[in-house]
Amino acid sequence: MQRVRAAVMSRPGSIGVKEFPFPELEPRAALVRMVMSGICGTDKHTFEGLTHHAGFQVNFPIIPGHENLSIIEKLGRKEDGWFDGNGVPLKQGDRVAPVPDVRCGECYTCKNFYGWSWCDRISAYGGQLSSRDPPHLFGGWAEYMYLLPKTSLFKVPDGLPDKIAVLTEPMSVAYSSLARALTPYWLVKEGSGPGDSIVIQGSGPIGLTHAAIAKMAGAGKVIMIGDPNERLEVAKQVGVDQTVSIEKYSTPQERVGRVLELTEGRGAELVIECVGSPTAFKEGLEMVSLGGTYLEVGNYVDAGEVSVNPHQILSKCIRIIGVNGNPYQAFGRVLTMMDLNWKHYNLDKLVTHSYNIDSAESALRTTQSLKGIKVVVTPS
Amino acid sequence: MQRVRAAVMSRPGSIGVKEFPFPELEPRAALVRMVMSGICGTDKHTFEGLTHHAGFQVNFPIIPGHENLSIIEKLGRKEDGWFDGNGVPLKQGDRVAPVPDVRCGECYTCKNFYGWSWCDRISAYGGQLSSRDPPHLFGGWAEYMYLLPKTSLFKVPDGLPDKIAVLTEPMSVAYSSLARALTPYWLVKEGSGPGDSIVIQGSGPIGLTHAAIAKMAGAGKVIMIGDPNERLEVAKQVGVDQTVSIEKYSTPQERVGRVLELTEGRGAELVIECVGSPTAFKEGLEMVSLGGTYLEVGNYVDAGEVSVNPHQILSKCIRIIGVNGNPYQAFGRVLTMMDLNWKHYNLDKLVTHSYNIDSAESALRTTQSLKGIKVVVTPS
Amino acid sequence: MQRVRAAVMSRPGSIGVKEFPFPELEPRAALVRMVMSGICGTDKHTFEGLTHHAGFQVNFPIIPGHENLSIIEKLGRKEDGWFDGNGVPLKQGDRVAPVPDVRCGECYTCKNFYGWSWCDRISAYGGQLSSRDPPHLFGGWAEYMYLLPKTSLFKVPDGLPDKIAVLTEPMSVAYSSLARALTPYWLVKEGSGPGDSIVIQGSGPIGLTHAAIAKMAGAGKVIMIGDPNERLEVAKQVGVDQTVSIEKYSTPQERVGRVLELTEGRGAELVIECVGSPTAFKEGLEMVSLGGTYLEVGNYVDAGEVSVNPHQILSKCIRIIGVNGNPYQAFGRVLTMMDLNWKHYNLDKLVTHSYNIDSAESALRTTQSLKGIKVVVTPS
Amino acid sequence: MQRVRAAVMSRPGSIGVKEFPFPELEPRAALVRMVMSGICGTDKHTFEGLTHHAGFQVNFPIIPGHENLSIIEKLGRKEDGWFDGNGVPLKQGDRVAPVPDVRCGECYTCKNFYGWSWCDRISAYGGQLSSRDPPHLFGGWAEYMYLLPKTSLFKVPDGLPDKIAVLTEPMSVAYSSLARALTPYWLVKEGSGPGDSIVIQGSGPIGLTHAAIAKMAGAGKVIMIGDPNERLEVAKQVGVDQTVSIEKYSTPQERVGRVLELTEGRGAELVIECVGSPTAFKEGLEMVSLGGTYLEVGNYVDAGEVSVNPHQILSKCIRIIGVNGNPYQAFGRVLTMMDLNWKHYNLDKLVTHSYNIDSAESALRTTQSLKGIKVVVTPS
Repeated sequence: MQRVRAAVMSRPGSIGVKEFPFPELEPRAALVRMVMSGICGTDKHTFEGLTHHAGFQVNFPIIPGHENLSIIEKLGRKEDGWFDGNGVPLKQGDRVAPVPDVRCGECYTCKNFYGWSWCDRISAYGGQLSSRDPPHLFGGWAEYMYLLPKTSLFKVPDGLPDKIAVLTEPMSVAYSSLARALTPYWLVKEGSGPGDSIVIQGSGPIGLTHAAIAKMAGAGKVIMIGDPNERLEVAKQVGVDQTVSIEKYSTPQERVGRVLELTEGRGAELVIECVGSPTAFKEGLEMVSLGGTYLEVGNYVDAGEVSVNPHQILSKCIRIIGVNGNPYQAFGRVLTMMDLNWKHYNLDKLVTHSYNIDSAESALRTTQSLKGIKVVVTPS
Repeated sequence: MQRVRAAVMSRPGSIGVKEFPFPELEPRAALVRMVMSGICGTDKHTFEGLTHHAGFQVNFPIIPGHENLSIIEKLGRKEDGWFDGNGVPLKQGDRVAPVPDVRCGECYTCKNFYGWSWCDRISAYGGQLSSRDPPHLFGGWAEYMYLLPKTSLFKVPDGLPDKIAVLTEPMSVAYSSLARALTPYWLVKEGSGPGDSIVIQGSGPIGLTHAAIAKMAGAGKVIMIGDPNERLEVAKQVGVDQTVSIEKYSTPQERVGRVLELTEGRGAELVIECVGSPTAFKEGLEMVSLGGTYLEVGNYVDAGEVSVNPHQILSKCIRIIGVNGNPYQAFGRVLTMMDLNWKHYNLDKLVTHSYNIDSAESALRTTQSLKGIKVVVTPS
Repeated sequence: MQRVRAAVMSRPGSIGVKEFPFPELEPRAALVRMVMSGICGTDKHTFEGLTHHAGFQVNFPIIPGHENLSIIEKLGRKEDGWFDGNGVPLKQGDRVAPVPDVRCGECYTCKNFYGWSWCDRISAYGGQLSSRDPPHLFGGWAEYMYLLPKTSLFKVPDGLPDKIAVLTEPMSVAYSSLARALTPYWLVKEGSGPGDSIVIQGSGPIGLTHAAIAKMAGAGKVIMIGDPNERLEVAKQVGVDQTVSIEKYSTPQERVGRVLELTEGRGAELVIECVGSPTAFKEGLEMVSLGGTYLEVGNYVDAGEVSVNPHQILSKCIRIIGVNGNPYQAFGRVLTMMDLNWKHYNLDKLVTHSYNIDSAESALRTTQSLKGIKVVVTPS
Repeated sequence: MQRVRAAVMSRPGSIGVKEFPFPELEPRAALVRMVMSGICGTDKHTFEGLTHHAGFQVNFPIIPGHENLSIIEKLGRKEDGWFDGNGVPLKQGDRVAPVPDVRCGECYTCKNFYGWSWCDRISAYGGQLSSRDPPHLFGGWAEYMYLLPKTSLFKVPDGLPDKIAVLTEPMSVAYSSLARALTPYWLVKEGSGPGDSIVIQGSGPIGLTHAAIAKMAGAGKVIMIGDPNERLEVAKQVGVDQTVSIEKYSTPQERVGRVLELTEGRGAELVIECVGSPTAFKEGLEMVSLGGTYLEVGNYVDAGEVSVNPHQILSKCIRIIGVNGNPYQAFGRVLTMMDLNWKHYNLDKLVTHSYNIDSAESALRTTQSLKGIKVVVTPS
C-alpha cells in the first residue's frame, strides 16, 4: 500500500522525513500533490524555537509548509460541486494554490471579519495542525497534502510559471497588508495614495513582496532599507526605486536621516515594518511623515516590548496598523496581478534556492544564512 | 485713550491682569469683544510648567484662552468681503467662535492637509503667539481679542446659549478625532461603525465631548472610565451608557477586566485615550477588540515614553491613530450638531464654573482640583 | 398526522390558505414556528402582477413573507453546532429573525461580494422559492417555516417587543442602504456625514425605516416627502425633522422648490428614493446638492425608464448608488441599534395593523389603501 | 510699447490674432510667458457653438487655452512670498503649469469642497474670463498670460519634456476622476481596486489620459472602446490591454457583447464615459458589473437627455459618479506620477500636432478631424 513521505519537524531544531499512510478522503476534503512549498520567515523562527505566533502556538510534531503550490489529485464528495475561491469550477489535475488558514465560517469572527484569516477555531496548515493527528498530511513539505473541508483553493493561471505561482501566499500577505494602508485617500494627504513615497524596513521575501505589490498598485518612490547588497540588487529589479544599505547606514540615526534626505525632509507617507524586531518598530516611527501610516507586519512572532512616546504618535498624527491575516480573496487578486505584471517586475528573481524534502534542514539553514531570497522545498 | 484688560501668564505659575493699548486694525484683521473663554487641560499643563505642546513651544508671556466665544466689534478692510467658515456673510455684532489656529495657506502642509490645523508656519492664539508682540491681544482671557488676517470665524446659531457655544472648540476636537475613527466601515468589522462599542479613558471635558459627539454620530454602547463620581454622573446625562469608576476599579487589570465583561469578552471596537498619560496608552491597548481602533488624543503635552509590544498590535490588527488638530470645518459641523442636539444630550451641564479675568488663578486652581467640569473665564 | 396551514398566492390577485405536510428536517436545516411576518411593498407589487424583481422572477405558487419573526421549533443535525449570524449559540425556543436570502457560499458572487445578499444561485423565501416544491414551507405567512441549510438566523434581544423585532428586515434594508452613502466623509463635503441634511422621497415603511436608521446614525436635518398626513405625523415621531406633504406640494417643481428652501438653496447632501417610480428618480436628482449622493432604493420592481441628463449628473458631481441587497450582517447590527434606541425613536408606532393568514387578502388590501403603516400577518 | 499677441475667439466659428497692451501687475498677480497650450474637446465644442459648460457659460470674446505650460516672467508683490501648490518657492524663469480654475477661497463651496475646482464665484481661464475685460490675457493661446491673485501654479520637474508637461491638466482631470472611483475597496468587491477591469468609452485625449493614470494606479485589464485605429494603436502604447474598435463593433449591442466576452460575462468593475454623448451613458451602464462603478466624465457640455431604467441601476447596485472638477492638488500628484512613469507609458506619443496662434483655426480643424491625438498651440 502506498505511503506518503513528508518532512516532519518534531521539535525546534529537529527535522527529518517520515512516512504516513495514504489518506482516505472524507466528504468535502481534497488531496493535492505538492509541486513546491516556500519557506517563510516564520518557519525559520519555529525551527529556532520561537513558537508563539500571532493567533496560535505551534503544535509539534508538524509538517511545515504553508506557501503551497500543488496539483489536485482527488476531490471528495461535495453535492454542491467544487469551485475555487473565485467561483471557478475545479477538477482533478488543476494546478492550485491552497489558502493556509481554514475558517469555520460559523463563529463571531468568521461572520463579521470578512476577508481576513481570523477565526475563533482556526485550523492552519504548516504549524497549527499537528502531523500527530490523522490524516497527518497538514503541511506542504510532503508528497501530498490533505485539505480539510472549507479549505479555499485558487486555480493558477495557465501561463504563470511554478516559480511565480509559489509566491501567491507571500504576495497575498503584502496585498492584504497594503490593502489597509493604500486604501483611503487620493487628494487629502492623510493616509497614502498613488504617487506617495513608501519606506520598507527589511529586504527579505516579505519586504520584497510588499515592494512589488506597492509598485503594481501605484506607489510612487519606494525606498527599501536592508541588506545584504545582493538582496538590494534584486529589490531594484522588482521595482524598488532607492535602497538604503544597513551596512553603510549602520545606526538608526543614520537610517532615519537618510530617509528624511530622500523625502525632502518630510518622511514617507507610508512606512512598512518587515524586519520583525521591536526596535525596528521604534525606528520606523521616526520615518513617518505628518499624517502618514505605519504598517506593523514583521513582528508576527512575539519578540518583546519596546518603548514609544504616545505624544510623538499624536503630534505627527501617525496611523499605526497591525497586520495579521491573509484573507483568501487576496489570493485571487494577487494571482491576477502577478499574471499581468510578473515579467515587468522580474518576479522570477525571487525564488533563488530549491531543496527536496530530504534536505529540508539544509533548506532552513540556507534561509538562516540570508543567502539568496526565497528558498523552496519540493517533494523530490 | 481706551485700554484693554487681559489676564497674562508671564511664566508657569504666575498669572495676573495687565493692560494693553486698544489696537488699530490692519487690513483683513478683526477685533472681537470676548463673551467667555473655556479653560483647556492644556492651559492647566502650561500653568504647571509643561510647555512643550504638539506643534509648538509656549511663548511666554501669553494671554491664555483658545476656546473662545465673542462678538464682532470691528472688521478690517477686506475687498472681497467678510464671510464665516461656511461662507456666511459676517458683520459687526455677530456672535462668533474664532478658530484658534491660523494657517498661512501657502505652505506644503496647508496645501495638502486639508481640514487639519497643521501649518508649517502656524500662529495659534492662547499660547503660541506671545502678548509681548503687538498688538498683544492674542488670547481669550481678555476684554478684546485681536484676530489676524486668515483667522476663520464661525457664526453661532441664534438660539444656542453662550454656555453651549463656548464648547465649540472642545466639541470640534472630539469631532475631528472621531472623524478619523468612525469613518470607514458599516458592515465589515474592521474599524468601527454605527452601533459599535466605544470606551473612553478619562472623564474630563475632552472625554465628555468625545462621548457626546460619539452618541450624536451613532455610537452604540459608550463606556467611560474615570473619576470622580460627580463627573461620571454628568457623563450619563450626555449619553454615556456605562461608567467604570477608577475609585472602584483601581488597577489597570481590574479596569481591563471590567471592559471585557461589558463587551462580551471581546473589548471595544473603539477606545479613545483622553487622559493624557503614557500609561493610559498602554492600558487602553488591552481594551481594544480584534481589528479595533485606538485613538490617541490625550498626550497633547509630552509626558514621556511607555513600553508596548508590536506583536500585540499585529496580533489584534489594532489601528492606532494619533490625533493632533482641530480643523476649521469641524467648527461649522459641530455648531450644527449642537444646535440640533444640545437639549437631548444635556450639554448645559458641562460648564460648571465661571470666573472673571481678575480671578484667572482661582479658575486654574479649580481646574486642577477636578471639581466640576468645564471652567470658563469671562472679561468681567 | 399534523398538517401546516399557510397562505398561498397561486397567481397575482389570488391568495388563500392551503395545508402542507409537517416537514422532516434534512441535516443543517431548521424548522421555526412563526410569530409574525410583515408585508413589504414588494408583496403588494407581486399581488398586483409586477413579478419581475431585482434578481429574480416570482415563482408561483408561493407562500409570501420575508420579514419574519419566529421561534426555533427544531434544529437539524449539524456536527459543528448551531450559531446565529453573530456566532451566538442557538437552541430550541430561541426567538429569531431569519435572513430571507440564502446564499450558496461557493459562487463568484458569494465569494467576492461580502455582506450583500447577492448570489449566482440565490434562494429567497417569500417569492423566489415556490411552495410547489417540497418541503413547501418557504414563506412566513404560515404556521411554520422551513429553513434551508445555510440560512442565517439572528437571535432577538430579550427585551425587544415582537412588534419591533418584526421590523428587523426592513430596518436592515435601510441600514444596508445608508451604509453605502453615509460611510465616506466627515470633513470634506463630498458624500455625506454626521450633521448633513437628508431628503427621503416616500413615507411608506421603507422611507420610515430609512429615517429612523439615519437619525440613529447621526444624520442632521431629515426631510420626508410623502403622504398621507397620518404617515407624516408618525414620521416626526421616528425622528423626521421636516415633512413635505404631497397633498400641499403637488408638483415636482413645488417639491424641489420646497427642499431648496429648507436647505439654504443648496439641496440635500443625501436624497433617498423610497417611492418606487421612475419619475421620482428624475425628480429626486434635482434635490441633490453639489457633490451630494442619491440612493436608488425604491425601484425594486421594474417600472420602466425615465429620461435624465448626464450633463446634470456631471455638473453637480452627483453620486447615484443603486441599492439591492440586504446582507445578513445588517440584521445583527440593526437588532443592536433597535435594542438601544427603539423607545427614543418610537418604533412601536410603525406596526399599525395585524391580520391572520386566513385574512391575508384583507391584509394586502390594507397595504394598498395606504391606511396605517406596516401591516403584519400572524399564523392565527 | 510692447504689445501682446493672442488668438481671440470672438464667437463660435470665428478665431483670429489680436494685440493687447502689455499688462501692469497688481499685487499677488503674475505674468507668464506661454510655452504651449493644449486643445481640449471643450475648446472644439465652444468653437462649434456648444457654449453651456458645466459650471459656466462661455463669455465671448475669449482667448482659449486652459491646458497651459509656461515660464514665469514676473511675479507681483506678495508679502508672504510666492510658493507653488506644493509649497515650493517660486521665482522668475521657473517652468510652471497654472491651474485653470481660480477659487475665491471664501465662499461656502471653497470652504467645504476641498480639492475640487468648484467655487460660487469661479474665475476660469480660457473660456469663462473674457478678453474684453482688462488686463485681457486670460487664456493660453497667446504670448503671455496674466494670472490673477489666488491662481495656483505648479513647478514642473526639470527632466520632464514640454510635450509631457503640457498634459498636466488633462492628466489631472483623469486623476481627479479616478480618485473618486478607485478609492474604496481592495477586498470587498464593491467599487473597484487594484487588478480590476476597466472599460473606457472613448479614445480621445481624455480617454487616453484616463487609461494612463488607471494603469499607473494599479488597474488590471484596461479595455478601450473607440476609433480610429490609429488612436487605438497609441492606446496600447500608453497601457491599454484590449481595444474594441467602433468600426468593427458598430452597434451598442455588439460593443456590450464584446465587453462581456472580455470580462468573463460579468462586465467591468469600472466603466468610464469619455465620449461626451448621452447615448454613450446609456450604453455604458450595460457594461458595468454587479456592484461596479460608472464614471460620467464626458458630458461636460450639455448635449441633452437619454432614458435610463432606475431598476437596472438598483438591480446591479451600480454607482454612477458625476465628475466635474479638477482640483489643484491633482496637478502636483500628476506631475510626480508623470515624472516617474512617462517613459514606461510612452506619454510622448500623445501630442501629435502643433500650430502657432496664427494657425489656431487650423489647429481646431485638426482636432475636429480626429487626426492625431492631442493638438497644441504655441505662441509663435
